[in-house]
Amino acid sequence: MRILLVNPNTTSSMTALIEGAAKSVASPTTEVVAKTSRMGPVSIEGYYDEAFAVPGLLMEIAEGEATGVEAAIIACFDDTGLDAARAMVSIPVLGICEAAVATAALVAQRFSIVTTLERSIMPVKGLVHRYGMTERATVRAANIPVLSLDDPSSGASNKLRSEIEKALEIDAAEAIVLGCAGMADLAHHLQEEYGVPVIDGVSAAVKLAEGLISLSLKTSKRGAYATPLAKSYHGMLAPFAPGFAP
Amino acid sequence: MRILLVNPNTTSSMTALIEGAAKSVASPTTEVVAKTSRMGPVSIEGYYDEAFAVPGLLMEIAEGEATGVEAAIIACFDDTGLDAARAMVSIPVLGICEAAVATAALVAQRFSIVTTLERSIMPVKGLVHRYGMTERATVRAANIPVLSLDDPSSGASNKLRSEIEKALEIDAAEAIVLGCAGMADLAHHLQEEYGVPVIDGVSAAVKLAEGLISLSLKTSKRGAYATPLAKSYHGMLAPFAPGFAP
Amino acid sequence: MRILLVNPNTTSSMTALIEGAAKSVASPTTEVVAKTSRMGPVSIEGYYDEAFAVPGLLMEIAEGEATGVEAAIIACFDDTGLDAARAMVSIPVLGICEAAVATAALVAQRFSIVTTLERSIMPVKGLVHRYGMTERATVRAANIPVLSLDDPSSGASNKLRSEIEKALEIDAAEAIVLGCAGMADLAHHLQEEYGVPVIDGVSAAVKLAEGLISLSLKTSKRGAYATPLAKSYHGMLAPFAPGFAP
Amino acid sequence: MRILLVNPNTTSSMTALIEGAAKSVASPTTEVVAKTSRMGPVSIEGYYDEAFAVPGLLMEIAEGEATGVEAAIIACFDDTGLDAARAMVSIPVLGICEAAVATAALVAQRFSIVTTLERSIMPVKGLVHRYGMTERATVRAANIPVLSLDDPSSGASNKLRSEIEKALEIDAAEAIVLGCAGMADLAHHLQEEYGVPVIDGVSAAVKLAEGLISLSLKTSKRGAYATPLAKSYHGMLAPFAPGFAP
Amino acid sequence: MRILLVNPNTTSSMTALIEGAAKSVASPTTEVVAKTSRMGPVSIEGYYDEAFAVPGLLMEIAEGEATGVEAAIIACFDDTGLDAARAMVSIPVLGICEAAVATAALVAQRFSIVTTLERSIMPVKGLVHRYGMTERATVRAANIPVLSLDDPSSGASNKLRSEIEKALEIDAAEAIVLGCAGMADLAHHLQEEYGVPVIDGVSAAVKLAEGLISLSLKTSKRGAYATPLAKSYHGMLAPFAPGFAP
Amino acid sequence: MRILLVNPNTTSSMTALIEGAAKSVASPTTEVVAKTSRMGPVSIEGYYDEAFAVPGLLMEIAEGEATGVEAAIIACFDDTGLDAARAMVSIPVLGICEAAVATAALVAQRFSIVTTLERSIMPVKGLVHRYGMTERATVRAANIPVLSLDDPSSGASNKLRSEIEKALEIDAAEAIVLGCAGMADLAHHLQEEYGVPVIDGVSAAVKLAEGLISLSLKTSKRGAYATPLAKSYHGMLAPFAPGFAP
Repeated sequence: MRILLVNPNTTSSMTALIEGAAKSVASPTTEVVAKTSRMGPVSIEGYYDEAFAVPGLLMEIAEGEATGVEAAIIACFDDTGLDAARAMVSIPVLGICEAAVATAALVAQRFSIVTTLERSIMPVKGLVHRYGMTERATVRAANIPVLSLDDPSSGASNKLRSEIEKALEIDAAEAIVLGCAGMADLAHHLQEEYGVPVIDGVSAAVKLAEGLISLSLKTSKRGAYATPLAKSYHGMLAPFAPGFAP
Repeated sequence: MRILLVNPNTTSSMTALIEGAAKSVASPTTEVVAKTSRMGPVSIEGYYDEAFAVPGLLMEIAEGEATGVEAAIIACFDDTGLDAARAMVSIPVLGICEAAVATAALVAQRFSIVTTLERSIMPVKGLVHRYGMTERATVRAANIPVLSLDDPSSGASNKLRSEIEKALEIDAAEAIVLGCAGMADLAHHLQEEYGVPVIDGVSAAVKLAEGLISLSLKTSKRGAYATPLAKSYHGMLAPFAPGFAP
Repeated sequence: MRILLVNPNTTSSMTALIEGAAKSVASPTTEVVAKTSRMGPVSIEGYYDEAFAVPGLLMEIAEGEATGVEAAIIACFDDTGLDAARAMVSIPVLGICEAAVATAALVAQRFSIVTTLERSIMPVKGLVHRYGMTERATVRAANIPVLSLDDPSSGASNKLRSEIEKALEIDAAEAIVLGCAGMADLAHHLQEEYGVPVIDGVSAAVKLAEGLISLSLKTSKRGAYATPLAKSYHGMLAPFAPGFAP
Repeated sequence: MRILLVNPNTTSSMTALIEGAAKSVASPTTEVVAKTSRMGPVSIEGYYDEAFAVPGLLMEIAEGEATGVEAAIIACFDDTGLDAARAMVSIPVLGICEAAVATAALVAQRFSIVTTLERSIMPVKGLVHRYGMTERATVRAANIPVLSLDDPSSGASNKLRSEIEKALEIDAAEAIVLGCAGMADLAHHLQEEYGVPVIDGVSAAVKLAEGLISLSLKTSKRGAYATPLAKSYHGMLAPFAPGFAP
Repeated sequence: MRILLVNPNTTSSMTALIEGAAKSVASPTTEVVAKTSRMGPVSIEGYYDEAFAVPGLLMEIAEGEATGVEAAIIACFDDTGLDAARAMVSIPVLGICEAAVATAALVAQRFSIVTTLERSIMPVKGLVHRYGMTERATVRAANIPVLSLDDPSSGASNKLRSEIEKALEIDAAEAIVLGCAGMADLAHHLQEEYGVPVIDGVSAAVKLAEGLISLSLKTSKRGAYATPLAKSYHGMLAPFAPGFAP
Repeated sequence: MRILLVNPNTTSSMTALIEGAAKSVASPTTEVVAKTSRMGPVSIEGYYDEAFAVPGLLMEIAEGEATGVEAAIIACFDDTGLDAARAMVSIPVLGICEAAVATAALVAQRFSIVTTLERSIMPVKGLVHRYGMTERATVRAANIPVLSLDDPSSGASNKLRSEIEKALEIDAAEAIVLGCAGMADLAHHLQEEYGVPVIDGVSAAVKLAEGLISLSLKTSKRGAYATPLAKSYHGMLAPFAPGFAP
């Protein structure tokens, strides 16, 4: 199996971190193809950044499908571009928030999601609602800029721990979901430290993607994810027109 | 007052139609500035098209704010890019689905939305849910491609009428919402024909925008719509980086 | 345009305050006709007072329609009598809670409503639910009797500020809705003080009413708001019988 | 035990019918005190009629409490005035829609409510939602004016049967709730005819009222139903002012 | 009337306590037949215990029906086995959580349930959701093992009071529901102490059961509670096979 | 990896069918250990059968854990005993309705579940609600007894196809979920026939189980699924007492 893992921000060190997490859980027969988006923001923090991460992300997924990957993962907790990607290709596509939430629901009745910045709380709550988990999930922010997760001197790790502790005590969380792809390397350690399931969306998505491939399940092309109609596109985005042949 | 009305698809004949609807309801002291997006698809039908309409749309809104418009309207019933636009600027921004649904709720307890294609039903249902109207609104598709609305020989008008009649009979709709900007010119006539309120989102949004301006209300910059953080963007979308100075 | 603004309590100083707020935002071509109810309680605090405010309120609206007003506003945050009024007349009718909540939703993802007394929290929550905003709005009470809002020595202003501050800090509110018609004069000042949108329902309703009139939208007479059937009424309320001719 | 049963419309033949249904299920030690409202409409069909039924209804309940009844029932399926009545008195007060829905939920997972006129569907749906049964109950109208229920020549009985049959077949209803006090005498017979539970709200409310009295439970005076504050009332409704002493 | 009251745990001292509560509110003509389950756990604390309380519980109810009881009550706040019991017999069956919640909703708009252990919070929340009260009820645990309620030296009473006080202050509860059959004897005293309605599910269920019997209402055998199909059962549970004749 | 697959009914031919489906999708390194319950009903059709399938099911899972399986799957679409099993063991446990619904949600926005008998519609709807998919899933019954699925002469296959066709046409389903473990062998063929994703819960659960094992995720022992407290059990179920040592 070949699974495409797209980091939709343009920071390659973060791709490396994510790729490591993905490979550590992938089956021996799975090839994880990790790609960094070639256009858009260096990190995705809020709706505006999300919007501009989409074209680069879709380009990677389209190229991935053309070169034979069997599933694609969008490695940003905002699940940005997920619907557009599902409409675009016929391979299955997974968002890591979706994957993390679906996985957490299998091992706990209620759980808390700890994301990075305050501004991401409402977007993530929107996703939680869409995935049917409003009554089971609480969303918290640790006030950590995404790129500081990479930097040991930032204090990010302590802020994250402090927020996890509040989740356990105040929310009575039974499990913790890490609300940023950049936290993918921390799940295992935090799970040991706190003695509750700690779910990272990147690795969760790898396993779900392997599952869908094994089950021969692809995105339905009936209804919401019907293949985009061929039509003209103008301006610098013209190469993205469905059916475009340069 | 100056209100920017962006047609986020690149078809200028549709902009003209929308502009006419907007101007017919605008206050005498309101200047409606209608713009056609300069990049992206010629029509927006489904999630994929939506995604690629966003950059051109945001460019128009950013330029509009820079030239002094006091509010912006996104004239596509999918409310594409609405959250990103709200985060980007400080003027208020309205989507026409949001405007239509908020307005319909003031004159009817339950109503039906008639949109164009089957593939748009789930995206519009998603918006209806977000706007809190799941229990009051039914979503139907008349199977009319967006651009056929312009073409009298397409039979679009009859298909639309037929679907409105189903809404009145089967859904017991008390009002009808027209689910596409391209239907903006039809509201008045259909309202007379069917004797129930018929709401067009473009004109509804113009009145809401005038209202927000009069009330000195702007999008909150606290929380979900906080101003995007300055950061680097790569590739062809780099000019969209917040704080970018070329 | 002529818009009727009914204060459904019988305190004319409060009508004056509300009228001032309405006129300060009305279009130059709008005439605001403010009326104080001639029967019922001096203030509306809870379900019981609400019930007895309805006949006087409906009398004003019926008279208003007969004298040519084009829309009516019920200036009490409980939206008391709203459904009955919509059924009674053919002009559009707006409640100020409904108007405030619909307006707040255009500029913020989550917001808090600060009302007067504890006993009004559940009635207002009921309205919030009806308007589809349960997941976006928090309701708080500042423990201020309605009529004390008029009285600078009451400390009402400080209690209100204190509750707004809790809303911002604890609820992470992005905007504030003032939950009583008697606070209509405070919105502008509080918005400046706290730097977030502060919405007053009276002025919000004026703009929505102007919008509905411009759009030629009236309450649907199909379904829930069908015109009351002609029938006999007994006792002192007989003059309210639909079709009654004394 | 003495239980007050108020018919909030002014038609005494309907009171007699309701009283009969109530007495047929009351415990031998329960005295049912049936009263016809002395002011308001002859039947309650829609929001407008509801509003004007409230003062007469509350007058009966206040008098009832003064003369020692231990609970009160509002015998109109719109549960009109229920909140105001609960705030007004300290004895428990029940609405018949509330009672019927609470009872149906004990014997069936999903059920259909068959009410009189189309215009009552949305008000009843509003109640169903408030009582937490949206996902379990369907609301239908048999297009029977309330007062025609009394008249064998009206065909009302056949229309009701026809609608019950649709509920069983289309809604897969497991039980039927009769959605009008005027149907109170039909429950027993229809239950035998259709072999599913058929619930009449009047008799259901009698049993719930007896239960609350036996359990020494009264409406909470904390929060939403706090005793109305003493205050002045103006005009013809002045005698209803809390604390009023003429 | 004969009503079966089953204590689904095997602790007979708890049965005695429950029986006392039931008899104290039962009508003079009602015979309460209290039974202790003969198989399963000594107390029910969480999902695992629940599962093993079901066979003994159902055996008592089947025997009860065979000996002529007209209704059955399952005296455990988890409402364990309720659906299976309803399918099994034709007499009505009530759970005490269901009864308590339905009763509380008649006397308060929002209320708090105080149960025993933390592990029961999510099961009880699941029931609250099923009964349509998610927005009105808060669930709390007093950290009291079920069997300690019997033991004055356990401090259980003080822990319960402390949690009730938090419910009143933090949740703004208007009424309290006691979330364990073992608290059935405390309702009356706590109601006097705190001045708000305090509801015990056992006594609430007795009154609802009497009501259903008086109304000639039985569980619908259409749909979800259809009589179990005759079929073979293997192993030690074979005697429970529907239609089994040893 | 060793995964236990329990058929909670006692029909071994059905176990063979389920085992085949599971093995056809399991990873080469996964050993599927299929077990038929040794006590309880020959098929599970409705709440009553469900209840009696639980002890046998739990016995298999407890034995499985003792012999080193790393995850367990309950192969009945009612997800019977799922909560009790999760509380009992520390390995992850999956229900096949849960697995199917979680998987369907990854490839379609709305889908229909086709189950066996009418009486299972409400239990399955209850699960759909619990899994957060109420607005996305429709539940239908094909009126096929569970054990007839094995019998080519029963016409079961045609009834199933007919119901799938209704789901596609009437519900606008984008994918189909097979609502019975006994349909596990049909998914692949039906998917080819109808050209939409067809999801079988058994195979979906195998892939989710492999995923959880790879991710080192186990059921949280904090909160709802805390390990059962050691306590005495009476009667024939005594061997199931937590901590029991015979």
